[in-house]
Amino acid sequence: MGKVIYVGGKPVMDYVTATMMQLTESDEVSIKARGRAISKAVDCAEIVRNRFVPDSEISGIETDTDELEDDSGGKRNVSSITIEMRR
Amino acid sequence: MGKVIYVGGKPVMDYVTATMMQLTESDEVSIKARGRAISKAVDCAEIVRNRFVPDSEISGIETDTDELEDDSGGKRNVSSITIEMRR
Repeated sequence: MGKVIYVGGKPVMDYVTATMMQLTESDEVSIKARGRAISKAVDCAEIVRNRFVPDSEISGIETDTDELEDDSGGKRNVSSITIEMRR
Repeated sequence: MGKVIYVGGKPVMDYVTATMMQLTESDEVSIKARGRAISKAVDCAEIVRNRFVPDSEISGIETDTDELEDDSGGKRNVSSITIEMRR
């Protein structure tokens, strides 16, 4: 099982670099994101496989819904994505 | 093959409604989005399956990279997602 790259507010190339590093150490990596960062996680996987690691592929994509508690104790649902890559 | 719901700039519930309508007429529907709307497409699928159509499921998710031409003739890459749902 490869390590997990959590995609958040940094520039996409930071996560591309982290994903590439993982793919030099392991055959597998998972890219995870929640909410608005989901689009960036997809960008990250697409950039890695198209531009930097041509022998890598997306082996699976799953989505889920997580329940988060905000500062005032209210609950809200947020979507998440997990993109599995391997080479 | 079900119809395609293209997710863009409208509120997510507009696409949830369109997806639900399709799932009353057909067993299958595809939800597609590009760029920042990808997160909203995932929200749409998650809301439909968790809240409104409990017998539906996500049967497949694929991502791709499309090359778009902007107004000045320059080319840029944009990620896309296709979420297949069935019930």
